[in-house]
Amino acid sequence: MARYFKSRTQGLGRKPGELVFIGSHDKEEIRTSLIDYSEKGIREDVWSDLPADKDLENPSTSLWLNFDGLHDLNRMDRIEERFELHPLVMADIVNTALRPKIEEIEGGIFFVLKMLRYSESDKKVMSEQFSMILRDDILLTFQEYPGDVFDPIRERLRAGKGRIRTAGLDYLAYCMMDSIIDNYISIVERIGEQIENNEEALLVNATPEVMERIIMLKREIIYLRKTIRPVIEAVQFLTKCENPLIRESTEPFINDLFANIRQVSEAIDTYREMLSEQLDTYNSLIGNRLNDIMKILTIFSVIFIPLTFIAGIYGTNFDYIPELHFRYGYLMLWGIILALAGAMLFVFKRKKWL
Amino acid sequence: MARYFKSRTQGLGRKPGELVFIGSHDKEEIRTSLIDYSEKGIREDVWSDLPADKDLENPSTSLWLNFDGLHDLNRMDRIEERFELHPLVMADIVNTALRPKIEEIEGGIFFVLKMLRYSESDKKVMSEQFSMILRDDILLTFQEYPGDVFDPIRERLRAGKGRIRTAGLDYLAYCMMDSIIDNYISIVERIGEQIENNEEALLVNATPEVMERIIMLKREIIYLRKTIRPVIEAVQFLTKCENPLIRESTEPFINDLFANIRQVSEAIDTYREMLSEQLDTYNSLIGNRLNDIMKILTIFSVIFIPLTFIAGIYGTNFDYIPELHFRYGYLMLWGIILALAGAMLFVFKRKKWL
Amino acid sequence: MARYFKSRTQGLGRKPGELVFIGSHDKEEIRTSLIDYSEKGIREDVWSDLPADKDLENPSTSLWLNFDGLHDLNRMDRIEERFELHPLVMADIVNTALRPKIEEIEGGIFFVLKMLRYSESDKKVMSEQFSMILRDDILLTFQEYPGDVFDPIRERLRAGKGRIRTAGLDYLAYCMMDSIIDNYISIVERIGEQIENNEEALLVNATPEVMERIIMLKREIIYLRKTIRPVIEAVQFLTKCENPLIRESTEPFINDLFANIRQVSEAIDTYREMLSEQLDTYNSLIGNRLNDIMKILTIFSVIFIPLTFIAGIYGTNFDYIPELHFRYGYLMLWGIILALAGAMLFVFKRKKWL
Amino acid sequence: MARYFKSRTQGLGRKPGELVFIGSHDKEEIRTSLIDYSEKGIREDVWSDLPADKDLENPSTSLWLNFDGLHDLNRMDRIEERFELHPLVMADIVNTALRPKIEEIEGGIFFVLKMLRYSESDKKVMSEQFSMILRDDILLTFQEYPGDVFDPIRERLRAGKGRIRTAGLDYLAYCMMDSIIDNYISIVERIGEQIENNEEALLVNATPEVMERIIMLKREIIYLRKTIRPVIEAVQFLTKCENPLIRESTEPFINDLFANIRQVSEAIDTYREMLSEQLDTYNSLIGNRLNDIMKILTIFSVIFIPLTFIAGIYGTNFDYIPELHFRYGYLMLWGIILALAGAMLFVFKRKKWL
Amino acid sequence: MARYFKSRTQGLGRKPGELVFIGSHDKEEIRTSLIDYSEKGIREDVWSDLPADKDLENPSTSLWLNFDGLHDLNRMDRIEERFELHPLVMADIVNTALRPKIEEIEGGIFFVLKMLRYSESDKKVMSEQFSMILRDDILLTFQEYPGDVFDPIRERLRAGKGRIRTAGLDYLAYCMMDSIIDNYISIVERIGEQIENNEEALLVNATPEVMERIIMLKREIIYLRKTIRPVIEAVQFLTKCENPLIRESTEPFINDLFANIRQVSEAIDTYREMLSEQLDTYNSLIGNRLNDIMKILTIFSVIFIPLTFIAGIYGTNFDYIPELHFRYGYLMLWGIILALAGAMLFVFKRKKWL
Repeated sequence: MARYFKSRTQGLGRKPGELVFIGSHDKEEIRTSLIDYSEKGIREDVWSDLPADKDLENPSTSLWLNFDGLHDLNRMDRIEERFELHPLVMADIVNTALRPKIEEIEGGIFFVLKMLRYSESDKKVMSEQFSMILRDDILLTFQEYPGDVFDPIRERLRAGKGRIRTAGLDYLAYCMMDSIIDNYISIVERIGEQIENNEEALLVNATPEVMERIIMLKREIIYLRKTIRPVIEAVQFLTKCENPLIRESTEPFINDLFANIRQVSEAIDTYREMLSEQLDTYNSLIGNRLNDIMKILTIFSVIFIPLTFIAGIYGTNFDYIPELHFRYGYLMLWGIILALAGAMLFVFKRKKWL
Repeated sequence: MARYFKSRTQGLGRKPGELVFIGSHDKEEIRTSLIDYSEKGIREDVWSDLPADKDLENPSTSLWLNFDGLHDLNRMDRIEERFELHPLVMADIVNTALRPKIEEIEGGIFFVLKMLRYSESDKKVMSEQFSMILRDDILLTFQEYPGDVFDPIRERLRAGKGRIRTAGLDYLAYCMMDSIIDNYISIVERIGEQIENNEEALLVNATPEVMERIIMLKREIIYLRKTIRPVIEAVQFLTKCENPLIRESTEPFINDLFANIRQVSEAIDTYREMLSEQLDTYNSLIGNRLNDIMKILTIFSVIFIPLTFIAGIYGTNFDYIPELHFRYGYLMLWGIILALAGAMLFVFKRKKWL
Repeated sequence: MARYFKSRTQGLGRKPGELVFIGSHDKEEIRTSLIDYSEKGIREDVWSDLPADKDLENPSTSLWLNFDGLHDLNRMDRIEERFELHPLVMADIVNTALRPKIEEIEGGIFFVLKMLRYSESDKKVMSEQFSMILRDDILLTFQEYPGDVFDPIRERLRAGKGRIRTAGLDYLAYCMMDSIIDNYISIVERIGEQIENNEEALLVNATPEVMERIIMLKREIIYLRKTIRPVIEAVQFLTKCENPLIRESTEPFINDLFANIRQVSEAIDTYREMLSEQLDTYNSLIGNRLNDIMKILTIFSVIFIPLTFIAGIYGTNFDYIPELHFRYGYLMLWGIILALAGAMLFVFKRKKWL
Repeated sequence: MARYFKSRTQGLGRKPGELVFIGSHDKEEIRTSLIDYSEKGIREDVWSDLPADKDLENPSTSLWLNFDGLHDLNRMDRIEERFELHPLVMADIVNTALRPKIEEIEGGIFFVLKMLRYSESDKKVMSEQFSMILRDDILLTFQEYPGDVFDPIRERLRAGKGRIRTAGLDYLAYCMMDSIIDNYISIVERIGEQIENNEEALLVNATPEVMERIIMLKREIIYLRKTIRPVIEAVQFLTKCENPLIRESTEPFINDLFANIRQVSEAIDTYREMLSEQLDTYNSLIGNRLNDIMKILTIFSVIFIPLTFIAGIYGTNFDYIPELHFRYGYLMLWGIILALAGAMLFVFKRKKWL
Repeated sequence: MARYFKSRTQGLGRKPGELVFIGSHDKEEIRTSLIDYSEKGIREDVWSDLPADKDLENPSTSLWLNFDGLHDLNRMDRIEERFELHPLVMADIVNTALRPKIEEIEGGIFFVLKMLRYSESDKKVMSEQFSMILRDDILLTFQEYPGDVFDPIRERLRAGKGRIRTAGLDYLAYCMMDSIIDNYISIVERIGEQIENNEEALLVNATPEVMERIIMLKREIIYLRKTIRPVIEAVQFLTKCENPLIRESTEPFINDLFANIRQVSEAIDTYREMLSEQLDTYNSLIGNRLNDIMKILTIFSVIFIPLTFIAGIYGTNFDYIPELHFRYGYLMLWGIILALAGAMLFVFKRKKWL
């Protein structure tokens, strides 16, 4: 299956805005969870389908409603209707092959991001789409399947320390983006460590395994770059848009976020260059080794081929070969052979082949 | 024939705006088809030449008039006159080698796009020019030959569900561009899948066939990039032009389109990088293999050449070679030979060649 | 002689604006030709030097005055004076090494372009400088030597069909630029066809001749790119400058021109990539072939070297070699030899070398 | 440990603005040093923890307060509180993995830069984070560990010559940036000298050691580029921001700084290109050498293999080989052998292999 | 010594604006020369140190004061004081490692440029810093050592023809920049000619000398690019700054200058590409040749190795080898040998190796 460009084929030919789920996780649990918090307290709730209207009526608090599982299109339709979302917005949420973006929509800001996961076993980066709609009174988040990087945020909400319960939903949205980007950082770091380890392994012994690792890492770096690059653009948009939903006190945090994502991107570029350089190095080393092998072969051949020829000459059965009957003929043979070999070794030494 | 840059030579030296058909499909059927729809109903009609004036007199409905076949220049002249098109516009329509573009013309918007077709048999992407003129009351579309990717749109028009019959001609034009770009996506996906499959085939066994496939895919990717890149620019123009023909309700759809085409373009760039990387990998693997072959050759030569030399020495016919008359001379020969071979194997083992 | 950067050395150290002819065609015929046309008729005239003042007095018609041959600096001085040109403008006209550009000058627009010529015999693109000054009442054009791509324009002027005799001098200037760019297209097409043919030749048989052709084509493409790239910038300037000399009715034509030149430039870039890719392919194929050669050499050597060694052993003249006296000694020798060879062939088969 | 992207993992999941020290130098001495100067005099002081409030009460003088050691987070918390810093600012100061930047903060300008150190022994560039907060009345600087490049500035402050004691804190901040960038220059110069020396070593003898040095230098250059590039952006920001803290008299110095840092960056780019070129050269030279080796091997093999074959023929024991009994058979053998060898040498000479 | 990045180490740690001479030419003659001209006449003077005040009192004329030799810092200090230069300006003048730039300073425009010199003997481009301060009444120029490219300007001043004596100091400054850039052109041309000659030499015979020349030329091109690129930016600044010192009549000349320097830069880029392409070609040719060598080696080995083996077989001393006693045994041996060799030649022919 194409990892770099998820199949949208099943969606082709339908009307725009018609919901088409793209993904393979249609067996995942469907869940809706609410965190309703204010400075004074916090209320958590979970539903297997959708909450009732009254569950969300609480004008004085901040609501964070998280939807796990996007494959039940009927449920998504009801969410669209319940929260009066534009059809295209909902289509973007369920189209999990989408390019990350942040855009202003009527009455809110719409975020499409990617959560990454690094599988240690097959050394691959996998991505999950994470969408978020920030409104004045509610933050809606959508995940393909349960399990995310937001547990520390939940803990902070429960603990109620710091500014998190007082700083508004825009700050909460920032925290979530921050968690996602921090997670990018940790993944880039893990891959980066492998790259830097590889660098040393390469100089010690340029085995084909090292090359395969370089290629594999390069593939992951290309994948990361493809996934992370549009996020820069998206966050930059956020630093510039003057939407009242982003309050002034949150702006420095957004700027900080922008600096982080740029740093991730630059690290990726640097690692990419390092991998290219490693492949060049590998090829140069292989070239060196080929040279060495050829040198040895050539030295042996060049020394022994003439000697074998001389032995061959005196192995012929001509009636009259005077040298064969010399008293010291055999010794002379060895003398000639050793002299020849010595001369050739001397030449090789002068050519710096030895 | 040059696929990357279709021949315009036959058009050179003529006056600007003079119609010159560039293409080889002059045997294709000529047809004009009309879909005349409103919220209330839909009327379809087909003519082998052109419709009469009265066929198009229906001020309260939306008209979509599609022309198949561009090679009958006399007919094109009559179309130019009938719809009062600027000579350059009509020249662009019949010049099927044109670069995709969208531009505002008097009383309308003029679209030149490319429909792509992926031929599974010769694994090649072919393109067909698709032009479109959006006016207040009519949408004119021009195709090189019959058969297109718009059947689902026609179905939706006939079914009359959703907004398609009420949302105006600009929405219909959007739907057509959307179909074309969705088609790009599905082609990029098919090529992408081959590229990703190739990646694994490469690591399993770097055969020349894998290399030929890489080269072939690279050519297709270059072709796709060349064809699709100008479309980005064209759609971007559409998102920015404030032409009253594009109503506000259609704008989010255009923005969506722009995001899609950019995603396609980024996928193409990523695949291109992957192919470059694959060729590098292929060359490195070939280098490795050459190394292995050389190693084996060298080991064999270096072991046996001296042994053959020794055998040669004792095959000479000198009168006096004392070793030949030793009691265990032959055994000693084997002893020396085995010792030499063993010593060399030991050296190779230490050099990690075995 | 440096084709990529024509010698200006002879001009160094002179005063700015001093006329210095750079070029080697100082034996070419000098000629001045006039086409004086209006809606009603056309008058053509030719002088070996310059026309008299009265020849150009015709306020109600459009004048196109073409100068062939730039090397007679005395004549150029008189032209400068006669038409009151800025010294730098005339210096640019005779400096045939100039970079293409279009700029507004006092009372006119000054065009410096390159006409290209593809020599089929030595497969080289050659360029000639073409300068043009557009004024309200006259169009002055300057060519290095007689012979150009404008004959179809002259024909159209004589025929008087279409808008050419009524549409003003700006339209005439457009027609000339259009002819020049159409000529670029036809040259790029011819080179492109060779490139695409080469692509197939390469996969059939990667001979050194194919490589030499790739290198030669690359050189021409680099040359074309260098020559054509500044023209894009120049034409873009024309689409943006709001000079009253370019009338509104001519603007769509200029835009068309801009689209054409951009298309040429993109085709060049695509061909350049294809050539790079072809060279990579060539090198990969050469690598493959080297591998194949080495495989054959290795298989033969590895099979026969041990066999020759064994034969050598039994060719020695030791007094006591028991095997030599075995009844079926010779048959056993062949048995061993065939078994060894068979075993090695089997190993090679398993290694997929055969 | 990843040098290119320092670990921030320990900081993930904490609340934004919570202090997390990233670095390994938690055993370094903690120190706070003050330089309190005015036109009239200078006072220096050092504390092992923090100064008391009264130590800093001196409205008529300029204060430079330098903190060495960032790992005692409790102390950093107290500094944050004492100088009313924004939590994100303090978080940036202790996050020593940060990308260099300059930004305006409330009541001041915040600088994050990198001091570089070149370790001659392991030929590596190491970096230390240097942060600085410029306020109206005080300059706060933060270093990871004691020892910096500012001693000449301290000397100039003590000496009191020139404008340093009168030109304000913005000038002092400039002096510090200037010292840091001058240090970059001296490091780039040292690496550059190695690169240029390597260039000559390469042409004299392309040993694998030269290649390893190229790779090592490339790594350092990549590291330098990654570290220095964001500084350009940061200094450019400073040249453009119209913060009243940067007085007009200091502006030319900032512009000068900007020119310097750009020059460093261009030198790095040039060196990087030179290294790429050197690796290409190395590979070409290795290719040449392989060619030479192969030539020698081939010449020897091609000359002696047929000769050995001929000798082998006359070593066979056939009953009837007429040549063996010719009177001058043996001489003829040598004659044939020499003729053959001579002919082949002649061919090689003509092929320019000798 | 680092040519690409001249040592500034000796200047580090000093106060900004303190003069530090960087360069090795401290033995050069120190000289100050004046050209004082007006429409009516010209006065020239030379001093070994500095002119007296009265020497420069001539309000109605234009003064060009040229200083040769920058290493006597005491003298530079006096110049700084005498002409009231900003300390940073004088620091830039004596820092001969500076990046070219043009900037507006108080009461003038400050130019830092590089004069290039091509040493034919060691085929290297060397640079000398040239600084210039344009003021209303005087033009100050500074050179590292005597000898420059301005003699034609002096001649024109003396001759007094053309506009040079009347067009003001800004025109004189333009003339000097023009001379410098013309000199760039002539150097690029000389290197370019070598590159184009090399191209042909390469295809005739790809010797290692050709490769070394490619590498050497690449180094010079990198150096030229590094030196010339910032000049583009500097001249562009001049075309845009609206300083009253640059009069309207001089502006077209500046624009011309800008076109020239861009043309130089493009030529450099083109040559750089050509050199890269030449190195690729060289490597491909070397690969071809390796292939040819291997082919010959393989053909010889593959033909003779089996033949030698057969000869070896019949050289064994087994008691009973029936073939040896056949009547035509020896002839049959030759028959088999020739048949085998013929078969293999046939195979090679079919494989197109011969």
